[in-house]
Amino acid sequence: MTRQVHIGGVALGGGAPVRIQSMTTTPTSDAEATLAQIARLAEAGCEIVRVAVRDEADARAIRAVKDRSPLPVVADIHFSAKLAVLSVENGADKIRINPGNIGGEAKIKLVADCVRAHHVPVRVGANTGSIEREYFERFGRSARALVESALHGAALLEKYGVEDIVFSVKASSVPLTVEAYTLLAACTDRPLHVGVTEAGTRESGVVKSSVGIGSLLLRGIGDTIRVSLTDDPVEEVYAAKRILRACGLERDFVDVIACPTCGRCEWESMGLAQEVERLTFGAKVRRKIAVMGCVVNGPGEAKDCDLGIAGGRDACVLFKKGEIVRTVPRSEAKEEFLREVRACLEGREE
Amino acid sequence: MTRQVHIGGVALGGGAPVRIQSMTTTPTSDAEATLAQIARLAEAGCEIVRVAVRDEADARAIRAVKDRSPLPVVADIHFSAKLAVLSVENGADKIRINPGNIGGEAKIKLVADCVRAHHVPVRVGANTGSIEREYFERFGRSARALVESALHGAALLEKYGVEDIVFSVKASSVPLTVEAYTLLAACTDRPLHVGVTEAGTRESGVVKSSVGIGSLLLRGIGDTIRVSLTDDPVEEVYAAKRILRACGLERDFVDVIACPTCGRCEWESMGLAQEVERLTFGAKVRRKIAVMGCVVNGPGEAKDCDLGIAGGRDACVLFKKGEIVRTVPRSEAKEEFLREVRACLEGREE
Repeated sequence: MTRQVHIGGVALGGGAPVRIQSMTTTPTSDAEATLAQIARLAEAGCEIVRVAVRDEADARAIRAVKDRSPLPVVADIHFSAKLAVLSVENGADKIRINPGNIGGEAKIKLVADCVRAHHVPVRVGANTGSIEREYFERFGRSARALVESALHGAALLEKYGVEDIVFSVKASSVPLTVEAYTLLAACTDRPLHVGVTEAGTRESGVVKSSVGIGSLLLRGIGDTIRVSLTDDPVEEVYAAKRILRACGLERDFVDVIACPTCGRCEWESMGLAQEVERLTFGAKVRRKIAVMGCVVNGPGEAKDCDLGIAGGRDACVLFKKGEIVRTVPRSEAKEEFLREVRACLEGREE
Repeated sequence: MTRQVHIGGVALGGGAPVRIQSMTTTPTSDAEATLAQIARLAEAGCEIVRVAVRDEADARAIRAVKDRSPLPVVADIHFSAKLAVLSVENGADKIRINPGNIGGEAKIKLVADCVRAHHVPVRVGANTGSIEREYFERFGRSARALVESALHGAALLEKYGVEDIVFSVKASSVPLTVEAYTLLAACTDRPLHVGVTEAGTRESGVVKSSVGIGSLLLRGIGDTIRVSLTDDPVEEVYAAKRILRACGLERDFVDVIACPTCGRCEWESMGLAQEVERLTFGAKVRRKIAVMGCVVNGPGEAKDCDLGIAGGRDACVLFKKGEIVRTVPRSEAKEEFLREVRACLEGREE
């Protein structure tokens, strides 16, 4: 069990649900564009949003963004204590810095005093690209170097009384990421922000993030997750939701079980499965729905589903909780099943 | 270290590389269509292919498929000892059965005698849908029930001298899948076929399979993997390749590192990253190429890349092994970088 910190109104760690976060791709100084993107991220299920702070205009724009943002806003800062302070003064709910590159002890004290006064937590993020020279020389590009770098960064803040610290130790290598977080989790009870950095385009990035973040979550490691994709950040949120669901960490959603189809499949189950998934992706109810290619294994393999359909040469079989309820002609199967799906979502019998 | 078996000419387990497999969706009796799909699967990187055997026509067609298949062929059989024997007699390189539902001891002996005579391994596959009644009643829908079911199935074959056995214990729940394989790996040294069953459509199925299969591979569990998607099986092979790569189990490929882009990004790195990924996906050389959104973190965060580019407001920076080699105007950056990528693949200097 990790300690708990609060990012605005959102509790992180200490038994709170694993939070989904993402990062805007707009220039933060363009508050309107940033807010429009935040609205889309929130709608998709994002719970915490990070914005890049490149300069004073970005830092000052946090005020306008915060005024209308439905999500707590985290300021992402590199190198500049001044921008860190300015971001917090303009309402940032959390900052992400690397204390090792903020410019020495006096500047760290400046940031520490500011975040303490505003009760704003700090994420200390070590990346394989920003390992402290000392640890890089001693331990190379390793899990140990990442963890020592992060702990050292936190110690600099702790010295000046900062208590609410979140850690991350991301690498673009998945095994290294998993190893680093596993080591880190054994060294600290602070909440962990988990992700694979520079994971790449959607197709490979989703796989890397799923393997890395998923492995850690299944080991009980991770309080907030960020999927990094070179894509629309809304896709990061969808992928993050799917990872939480796969790990059994989101209860209220519709799990669509669909068989891969094989030579036994005698109808077009693929299109229907996709349609059921689209129809149910956003629903916040706990259901399990099966779309199976053939009658032989369908009802049996989907015993614990609230609702299911299995195809056959002439007719499809509808089943509920593993019991066949009726058969329907193939020509009517799709419409009939989608009606049943809607009824199932609403908790009524069709 | 697991024992090794051979599926045709492909070694499985015992230190052999983790093998990618998939399953055709064509009626196996249509040998031409099945062979066309197998050719596409092989081209994508599939190493073992499974075909559904529903009836005698399918079983007999294995002969024609095998004659021209570039991949070893596994016959997928449910309930019928007769079809199992007929498949092996027609050249199947492995069969997948559930000995518990094959129809009693005499029929198991029939199958066992046949596979021993032909030196064909058997996969004993327990699924949450096919747990032996006895174990389901004792242990419910649990990891223990899956594992006991599989071990019991294998014991039926072992009794009649079958030695080459591969196990699978798939569930549609990812945590249950991971728990079951982890338990199984502690109970046996036989090779394991790893997958999440009925994982669903491409988008959620890739995530479920990545989390489940990836977690197991990172724990050293798994000798062959199958990604199950309700989609073109070629997509299963691509996803499987990406999982192996993410887990560090494929050495010779191009790892494209791309940052998620943020408010710091001043050029169109997303499109370029996608193009680089497409261009390099099939290449069998070990390279790491970075496409980074901004100059500030680009070269630093991608220190260990063979080649990289980081964008800026006016010009982009090209780097190799973390050293900046030159800047190029934004208008020429894409073409220039793609030329460098091609040179990098060929191991020559551009």
